[in-house]
Amino acid sequence: MIIINFKTYLEATGKKAVELAKKAEKASKETGVYIGVTPQFCDIKSVAEAVEIPVYAQHIDPIRPGSNTGHILAEAVKEAGAIGTLINHSEKQIKLADIDAVIKLANQESLISCVCTSNPPISAAVAYLNPDIISIEPPELIGTGVAVSKAQPEAVTNTIKLVRKVNNEAIILCGAGISHGEDVAVALKLKTQGVLVASAIVKAKDPYSIIREFANATKQ
Amino acid sequence: MIIINFKTYLEATGKKAVELAKKAEKASKETGVYIGVTPQFCDIKSVAEAVEIPVYAQHIDPIRPGSNTGHILAEAVKEAGAIGTLINHSEKQIKLADIDAVIKLANQESLISCVCTSNPPISAAVAYLNPDIISIEPPELIGTGVAVSKAQPEAVTNTIKLVRKVNNEAIILCGAGISHGEDVAVALKLKTQGVLVASAIVKAKDPYSIIREFANATKQ
Amino acid sequence: MIIINFKTYLEATGKKAVELAKKAEKASKETGVYIGVTPQFCDIKSVAEAVEIPVYAQHIDPIRPGSNTGHILAEAVKEAGAIGTLINHSEKQIKLADIDAVIKLANQESLISCVCTSNPPISAAVAYLNPDIISIEPPELIGTGVAVSKAQPEAVTNTIKLVRKVNNEAIILCGAGISHGEDVAVALKLKTQGVLVASAIVKAKDPYSIIREFANATKQ
Amino acid sequence: MIIINFKTYLEATGKKAVELAKKAEKASKETGVYIGVTPQFCDIKSVAEAVEIPVYAQHIDPIRPGSNTGHILAEAVKEAGAIGTLINHSEKQIKLADIDAVIKLANQESLISCVCTSNPPISAAVAYLNPDIISIEPPELIGTGVAVSKAQPEAVTNTIKLVRKVNNEAIILCGAGISHGEDVAVALKLKTQGVLVASAIVKAKDPYSIIREFANATKQ
Repeated sequence: MIIINFKTYLEATGKKAVELAKKAEKASKETGVYIGVTPQFCDIKSVAEAVEIPVYAQHIDPIRPGSNTGHILAEAVKEAGAIGTLINHSEKQIKLADIDAVIKLANQESLISCVCTSNPPISAAVAYLNPDIISIEPPELIGTGVAVSKAQPEAVTNTIKLVRKVNNEAIILCGAGISHGEDVAVALKLKTQGVLVASAIVKAKDPYSIIREFANATKQ
Repeated sequence: MIIINFKTYLEATGKKAVELAKKAEKASKETGVYIGVTPQFCDIKSVAEAVEIPVYAQHIDPIRPGSNTGHILAEAVKEAGAIGTLINHSEKQIKLADIDAVIKLANQESLISCVCTSNPPISAAVAYLNPDIISIEPPELIGTGVAVSKAQPEAVTNTIKLVRKVNNEAIILCGAGISHGEDVAVALKLKTQGVLVASAIVKAKDPYSIIREFANATKQ
Repeated sequence: MIIINFKTYLEATGKKAVELAKKAEKASKETGVYIGVTPQFCDIKSVAEAVEIPVYAQHIDPIRPGSNTGHILAEAVKEAGAIGTLINHSEKQIKLADIDAVIKLANQESLISCVCTSNPPISAAVAYLNPDIISIEPPELIGTGVAVSKAQPEAVTNTIKLVRKVNNEAIILCGAGISHGEDVAVALKLKTQGVLVASAIVKAKDPYSIIREFANATKQ
Repeated sequence: MIIINFKTYLEATGKKAVELAKKAEKASKETGVYIGVTPQFCDIKSVAEAVEIPVYAQHIDPIRPGSNTGHILAEAVKEAGAIGTLINHSEKQIKLADIDAVIKLANQESLISCVCTSNPPISAAVAYLNPDIISIEPPELIGTGVAVSKAQPEAVTNTIKLVRKVNNEAIILCGAGISHGEDVAVALKLKTQGVLVASAIVKAKDPYSIIREFANATKQ
């Protein structure tokens, strides 16, 4: 499983978000690997209309329909075509009680909840809240090109051990610093089920070939 | 000038956002009155493609392209079709320095900046930051059905006086509690140049007729 | 164990904070019950100098010494005389990663960490972060005079069950709505080890007698 | 006028806050220059009891007495001995509406309001809210040792010009990067009425001699 976070990169905004999503779809169809994309809110609809691969929102707010100008409504991202959402990304962290509330909101709207966490105890804490996916991302590695699966393999294995104590169902992804197919392979060897990646793909000269490299690595 | 804030009302989400925008466009074309709409981020693109009237974002973040997962990028709302943005709505208030930063960002991206403010001195303070539009909205009246132009006419006239001391160019709107055509007429008589409205239109059984009523009132 | 949260009540500010703490100390000495007090930051030092019972801060920020104007430094509350701190009170909620960081900071400074939580899964999530004390406080009951131990006994027992799965050491307190000695007795019968209380004591005509009532109830 | 911000430096925490305040008091008495100190909340009372020079809080929250665990109550800092407060320091920025609310709260409690601002238009915006003191602090210079009065003299003079258009009474201070007596002298030559300083004094080997140097510079 590969989820590509488009962040607010210009290389993945507007038309370019659609183009990048199509490359991800091509790689997904060719390899049979689950590849999801996470465009900005404004781009969810056009991306979801252009591709058949899963589209995630980058965040939703713990709100119900009503007077919440400027906030992100679960119902809105869903109607736009998202099938899931990131929650608590290191660049958009929220209060503990809101993580819980947003996971429940996502459930109600049948959106897949993917909670981003940093260290092992925090990941295990989140496991108790029953998200569908937990993505481990030590903030100090994000965007460095140093993969968490290689720099901190024990962080990954410890996290999995702690998470599995209380939660056998959540999918566990590994994020932060994933740059090469080899990083992906290591991540899977450590018993994660995939990766959450951003700059390595979005900023690449040839994103398609990197996506293919990553997808291939998940199949070894 | 009428700007309709769709907030996160289900009655103005997804397909319904497009339908409502079309009603606003019809009223605008029939009356010649400037009517803008402010859908959720996910709906900006489909609304902007469906209508020719101006589309505003509800908020943008003080960020540049890059690693800002879950944030609102000026470039993204613009490419989606927005021509302006609300800033500092009472439901999405931001720091003073960020109001300044976001007005400048909007300028750079040729987005119209519409800053929402509450009392007269705050409105005058914002006037110094040179936004294109200032919308006066005492938070205690929002959603009450009691119009600021009637409940606090002196708030409106004082604000205009203070704002004009330092800024002769900003358009001044009046928000909060506008429910009837009469409220709109009073607002204009007090020398505002229009209204920012939400529930009175979005929650109406027949939004089109209310929009027409408001548009007619601006022409008297 | 009883912890009294002084919040920002005028009845527990400045000189009155010291007076109230002395009443708590009297009740503690007479009954042998552990009674802690939680004054505002400005009052920690004078309270800690006036009484021998444990003094807690209401919050500390996840910061190190340096350029953090307006923030709460662990070292500062400790030097003022606090021996512990509330963390993530429902009126001062923080991000999940910050709860983890602040618990660690408290450990480093030998401050007792008392994390406030709302529902059972959130409490269990926090248990993984190894705070010294977990205080269960459903926000909807705070200040209502309806005790969590009576209104939601299953919330309390479920929480304890979940927490004990991963953490056998944390003290578990029960907050929110505790008004009568009976509420305290019920809380203990449900296997919590004490209560975190505020208005019932601070706002009482005769705080001393309520503290005594609560302290007596913990001994039955 | 010199205000010394103690921030959360260990060199100005607890006992050391009192010692530093005494040095400031000595320099103030010897030179006749107004020198205020801004210790952490926990230290306000002991500093205010130890010295006769003015003591400021670093921040107050826009709250009234009641259920605000972990927040800073105007009444509490006042009873502890503060005679004023910083507002919106660059390290503790608040929403525009809160700046207005906190200035009013400070007025009600007879606390001197000192609002920190960054660029000229923001400073002028704040001038409209009638604080007692405006302290100009471009965030990019804070802690750099490069004085705003020297690096950006036009920022200072522009600010004063804009502020004076709408407000003839507020005292204008200049912060950020003030390191030498000469910086202070330049600041005054540019028609500010004093400086807000932090690291240059708190981190100095001999804080007293720096305070004297600054105090002397204000008298030339």
